Amino acid sequence: MNVRADGHVAFPPDHGDACWWNGVMTITKAELFHQLHNGDRVLVLANAWDVASARVVEDAGAAAVATTSAGVAWSLGAPDGDRLGRDLALELIARITTAVGVPVTADVESGFGADPDDVAETIRGVVAAGAVGVNLEDGLHGGVRPVTEQVERLAAAREAAQTGLYINARIDTYLRAVGDPASRLQDTLDRAAAYLRAGADGIFVPGVTDLDTVASLVRGVGAPLNVLAGPGSPAVAEFGAVGVARVSLGSSIAEAAYDLVRRSAREALTSGTYESVPCNCDYDELNALMR
Amino acid sequence: MNVRADGHVAFPPDHGDACWWNGVMTITKAELFHQLHNGDRVLVLANAWDVASARVVEDAGAAAVATTSAGVAWSLGAPDGDRLGRDLALELIARITTAVGVPVTADVESGFGADPDDVAETIRGVVAAGAVGVNLEDGLHGGVRPVTEQVERLAAAREAAQTGLYINARIDTYLRAVGDPASRLQDTLDRAAAYLRAGADGIFVPGVTDLDTVASLVRGVGAPLNVLAGPGSPAVAEFGAVGVARVSLGSSIAEAAYDLVRRSAREALTSGTYESVPCNCDYDELNALMR
Repeated sequence: MNVRADGHVAFPPDHGDACWWNGVMTITKAELFHQLHNGDRVLVLANAWDVASARVVEDAGAAAVATTSAGVAWSLGAPDGDRLGRDLALELIARITTAVGVPVTADVESGFGADPDDVAETIRGVVAAGAVGVNLEDGLHGGVRPVTEQVERLAAAREAAQTGLYINARIDTYLRAVGDPASRLQDTLDRAAAYLRAGADGIFVPGVTDLDTVASLVRGVGAPLNVLAGPGSPAVAEFGAVGVARVSLGSSIAEAAYDLVRRSAREALTSGTYESVPCNCDYDELNALMR
Repeated sequence: MNVRADGHVAFPPDHGDACWWNGVMTITKAELFHQLHNGDRVLVLANAWDVASARVVEDAGAAAVATTSAGVAWSLGAPDGDRLGRDLALELIARITTAVGVPVTADVESGFGADPDDVAETIRGVVAAGAVGVNLEDGLHGGVRPVTEQVERLAAAREAAQTGLYINARIDTYLRAVGDPASRLQDTLDRAAAYLRAGADGIFVPGVTDLDTVASLVRGVGAPLNVLAGPGSPAVAEFGAVGVARVSLGSSIAEAAYDLVRRSAREALTSGTYESVPCNCDYDELNALMR
């Protein structure tokens, strides 16, 4: 394997789904992506939403690129939450997988459709677009889907994948404060067990950063646990110390980028100055990254 | 007209190419966009590159939305400089014009093609996509096209537009430091005169921020002059005082946004913290903007 100075695995971007070293295929990107959940290091995902952000994240040393569904939806003209058209979402995934060499995992919200068949169609499209991982969430209309319904959707996704696609099952009980707080941990663990039986490879529980609760989730889930981090949350090392396998930044970087747009536009339109636009901009560097 | 507290013209986003007030059509968006170059206020364009940035800029009070070709190309996976496919560029323009109510002007680099016919095809696509303005540059391979060639391209664009499309002819003599500095001002003015005769409505000279030179350009061009501003350049009011009609921020906001991605990713991947991601992120506000 081509291991960089920072310990991350790197490989040429032009060899499709396979990893090559001295001309010999080693493992697929999907296999590599699975391995990244089971190593000594926490898999850190600074979520991207377009080709430029994906290339910048890869260039920053990321072992994999994950999309943020919110950032993707906003950049393409839709609110977050299954409002973006499947075709636009899949085209975006293909643009990113074409541009980066590391494994790509796509957040496809709840799967873009009401029925398990819709989820299956989305998953086939995700695989065809070259992603090796996917996030599927159980959130629905401010709450969560019934467990049996989400199990059917995950099973449909597993069957549709036909490959080693890493299915990260997102449970929104904490994010949407579903049900009685006293039973939320157990409800979440029950969902996790059902989702893993349905074919999920890992569990993503956003909205919980309390380390004791996270540690309980790690112990109870028994598969790679993904948490959502960001300003105010514990650092990656703290999550890693309690056994978290994967830390995602979600939509926070996209939100911060568009907040910069807002501040820059307001300043230029009101005071007519440009101090909100940092001076260390790098046209040539970005242009070179896209070649 | 629906004039906001900040003096900008606003109108409902759902009425296509026309401006409506109390149910009566007043002027087209193209007419409004022309007027914005000839009023008392400098037209300030905080350039956008996707739907979210366009909506954020509009929401910040902008009278019009302009795209940055560099930001558009990077976000879609190409370097700047006529490398992006025309179809991807036009789809992006359509997504933006569908999402915002204010006039949209599109930077289409040098027109996506070697021949005037290619430029004409691009312009027909831009008009069909709902933009009411366009930037066409004479830069080519680090220098500038022969004047006669660029005149043919602008004439083809003018003929193809078939409407009141505002054609902003960009002259890259200063940006690319073309020729003898002693004759650059006169060369630029000669190009401006030729481009205006070919049908351009205004002249864009990026790469010059010296106010004396800008003032000479304003006097010599005799049509709305657009300059490129950003960190370190004079403020909008200073440009306005010497007669500049339009100030663009170009790719600087996009560069700053992707620089934020870089810093956030590097920090999360190395120290495992998130201080590069500002805390004032606004998921709900962005989501609401996209509805």
